Amino acid sequence: MTALLDLNSDVGESFGTWRLGDDDALLAIVTSANVACGFHAGDPTTIRHTCATAVAHGVAIGAQVGYRDLPGFGRRFIDVDPVDLTADVLYQLGALQGIAAAEGGTVDYVKPHGALYHAIRTNDGQAAAVVEAVRLFDPSLPLLGMPGGRWRAHAERAGLATVTEAFADRGYTAEGELVPRGTAGAVLTDPVEVAVRCVRLATEGVIIAADGTELSMTARSVCLHGDTPGAVELARAVRAELVAAGLTLRSFG
Amino acid sequence: MTALLDLNSDVGESFGTWRLGDDDALLAIVTSANVACGFHAGDPTTIRHTCATAVAHGVAIGAQVGYRDLPGFGRRFIDVDPVDLTADVLYQLGALQGIAAAEGGTVDYVKPHGALYHAIRTNDGQAAAVVEAVRLFDPSLPLLGMPGGRWRAHAERAGLATVTEAFADRGYTAEGELVPRGTAGAVLTDPVEVAVRCVRLATEGVIIAADGTELSMTARSVCLHGDTPGAVELARAVRAELVAAGLTLRSFG
Amino acid sequence: MTALLDLNSDVGESFGTWRLGDDDALLAIVTSANVACGFHAGDPTTIRHTCATAVAHGVAIGAQVGYRDLPGFGRRFIDVDPVDLTADVLYQLGALQGIAAAEGGTVDYVKPHGALYHAIRTNDGQAAAVVEAVRLFDPSLPLLGMPGGRWRAHAERAGLATVTEAFADRGYTAEGELVPRGTAGAVLTDPVEVAVRCVRLATEGVIIAADGTELSMTARSVCLHGDTPGAVELARAVRAELVAAGLTLRSFG
Amino acid sequence: MTALLDLNSDVGESFGTWRLGDDDALLAIVTSANVACGFHAGDPTTIRHTCATAVAHGVAIGAQVGYRDLPGFGRRFIDVDPVDLTADVLYQLGALQGIAAAEGGTVDYVKPHGALYHAIRTNDGQAAAVVEAVRLFDPSLPLLGMPGGRWRAHAERAGLATVTEAFADRGYTAEGELVPRGTAGAVLTDPVEVAVRCVRLATEGVIIAADGTELSMTARSVCLHGDTPGAVELARAVRAELVAAGLTLRSFG
Repeated sequence: MTALLDLNSDVGESFGTWRLGDDDALLAIVTSANVACGFHAGDPTTIRHTCATAVAHGVAIGAQVGYRDLPGFGRRFIDVDPVDLTADVLYQLGALQGIAAAEGGTVDYVKPHGALYHAIRTNDGQAAAVVEAVRLFDPSLPLLGMPGGRWRAHAERAGLATVTEAFADRGYTAEGELVPRGTAGAVLTDPVEVAVRCVRLATEGVIIAADGTELSMTARSVCLHGDTPGAVELARAVRAELVAAGLTLRSFG
Repeated sequence: MTALLDLNSDVGESFGTWRLGDDDALLAIVTSANVACGFHAGDPTTIRHTCATAVAHGVAIGAQVGYRDLPGFGRRFIDVDPVDLTADVLYQLGALQGIAAAEGGTVDYVKPHGALYHAIRTNDGQAAAVVEAVRLFDPSLPLLGMPGGRWRAHAERAGLATVTEAFADRGYTAEGELVPRGTAGAVLTDPVEVAVRCVRLATEGVIIAADGTELSMTARSVCLHGDTPGAVELARAVRAELVAAGLTLRSFG
Repeated sequence: MTALLDLNSDVGESFGTWRLGDDDALLAIVTSANVACGFHAGDPTTIRHTCATAVAHGVAIGAQVGYRDLPGFGRRFIDVDPVDLTADVLYQLGALQGIAAAEGGTVDYVKPHGALYHAIRTNDGQAAAVVEAVRLFDPSLPLLGMPGGRWRAHAERAGLATVTEAFADRGYTAEGELVPRGTAGAVLTDPVEVAVRCVRLATEGVIIAADGTELSMTARSVCLHGDTPGAVELARAVRAELVAAGLTLRSFG
Repeated sequence: MTALLDLNSDVGESFGTWRLGDDDALLAIVTSANVACGFHAGDPTTIRHTCATAVAHGVAIGAQVGYRDLPGFGRRFIDVDPVDLTADVLYQLGALQGIAAAEGGTVDYVKPHGALYHAIRTNDGQAAAVVEAVRLFDPSLPLLGMPGGRWRAHAERAGLATVTEAFADRGYTAEGELVPRGTAGAVLTDPVEVAVRCVRLATEGVIIAADGTELSMTARSVCLHGDTPGAVELARAVRAELVAAGLTLRSFG
């Protein structure tokens, strides 16, 4: 089997004295690191350490741009004017690039964070604004996100590459949406089961919904969470299963 | 006469709904623009507009890096750990570069702002931290500041170019320090007098102190303030006098 | 004529080095001051000076609570969780009260700012959250806002007094909504015309819409803007006209 | 034995998604809670939960006012103008009082945090500024801090009560200063040893320095740290030892 799969995870989300996630462990597991850029999380010293560790592990560096909202961790929709959002994203991309380059790395892709990630699926103005920022910054950078949505349409029109990700540890509805957290089947915790889903995804382009429906899904990357108890252990176990199944784990850059 | 002189001024210091300074007017006068990078002032949209205007006027773009202190406008000393300060400065340099490049420009030099500008004259750890950030970001960027001080020693050791500036609209003591604001002779407001000082500075390397002492001072750049009433008019008049005197106004980059 | 009218205006919206509005002038004109509480604008020193000036003029102090969004000046909707919004508003109310009391004043009423002001007309969760904060802080404080909307329903259920305001310098549609800025008739600038509208409002409970419709509107307070060029002059002229017309200008507290 | 001792600890230092310390456990141990007020740590929802828990346990609520520096957690000296510092402290005191009162509590005392705690021992202007804020807010509130220093002189002149605290889990030099962290004997981890020190402190007014010197020290309160691994267990064990030794644990309010 020569199927390729990328594993991505959020890192660099500490802020000052406040620690979040076990970045050092995660960066030894994943192939792509979504690094917070300071607007929703991530102080410059944390970002620098995260980039250095990613470079040391040969992990691709993604800019996890977000709303300017430290108290809300970027998880609250903000009705930012698209003109301002483009500038906000440009600022974050440049800041991360400045630090990544100092550590011998570079920004390899862009993945919006939290509420912005979800907003650009439906909010046309904000989707266009994010795409415009990436295009201005470096039109060779791919955008990573969920299938479909306004962001993809805008990215394609602007000539940006897009990469689709799946959430292997999350249940899907028959419509291809995530089963809401708190609902039965929303979160999977068995590494073998998660790995089996990843393998089918990578080799057949299929994921099984919570109701048994076979969903067609082309995902070059799988998002693993690192901020919940046991998440790092799950990620490590999933990685081992994928390697054992013969998948090649490699970033999409 | 073929003497060269650079005129620099602080710009990009608005923040959101709050406006400060008449950047569009200043950028038609100066040859170097010290652009706030978001930590003490400057939201991304403001920075973007400022960079676009600087590029349109052929004005060099300087990174005016500062302490992370919007409420204090970067004018209060903060005892930042040098490790954090290096990361903070790297972050700001990258952010400005990301926006400047989107407007067809680039960061041409670095001038620390406010309390940081003054701290690195005597605070060895912070001076080294700022120099280290510039070296990591782009060792070809010159640092702009006052004569002497720890920052210069560190910059020279690190192989960075340094550029010295004078304050032509401020009085100097016989020791070469600025006459404190609020003291007689602290601020000059007559454009002809200011221009005459600039010409002597550029052609003879001399500035006259408040007590009449001839101070030897090699300053390739002169700082003009734009944030006080009448400052833009003064800057414009000084520029006209300098041009009339045959000086060539050009950035040091 | 014994009709009572309150004139309210936003003040205390400077932040650090950035100045906004001519508070000292406005506080000599209005009878109620909507003082920014630090989340969308207003640093503590500004708030303190504003409260001292309001107390000196006998002007009522209102808490202009807002979203935590300095870069957006509180003018962008943020999808804050109601639990967090209640705590955010409580925090702002307490902060303003602490400063007002130090100057011999007290918080007399609450008027949400910007996007929050508009959100609580339709967003049930946020409307309930703001009302809950006021009820917890001091259930004797009235809430000031536009007619109708979810906030009023929640306030009445919670036993809070509500006060309705009109915008005498803004055009209304026949449906009682503000004519959007940028549209013809959105903004009135003739003090006599504005004053005439205020008098009819105070004495007959009527305001004339842009299309000539007579709208029934009971407004105990009229909002005057102070942040645009000429706004203070307009406010002063309107006040003089109202006094000349025999209206009694007095806060609603 | 009827000796009284207060145990105080820092709480409410989480911020948004970032958690710090085990407040619920600490509030079942201490008699006084130094609650962060939002400038160096503590979002309003966290502060509210902390106040509710303190009230439920009958624990006194202290305002842990700090510099406005979330990225530095208030641990970096900032050269704030005393006029601004007074307003900053007033703002924080009011904000905490607003939330505490909503939970049936009240601000019982004031303990500055981090770099501000240390600055007011020697920085005359900042010491006077903090005292002035407390005096304006409520002159019946005691200030809690280390023995000696400028803050005490200013507090006494202003008629404020002062309370002295000791650090029972920290070594002291023969001069009564803390042994610097990282030095041998800086931190004590044996609960019996810590408790024995507390008992001598409370009953004899003596603490033994690292070199064996008997230091005379009148401390009505002992600070226990809760933010390091094992700290809560140590605090719990110390409390049990103190109760077993017959000390009465009670706040100083």
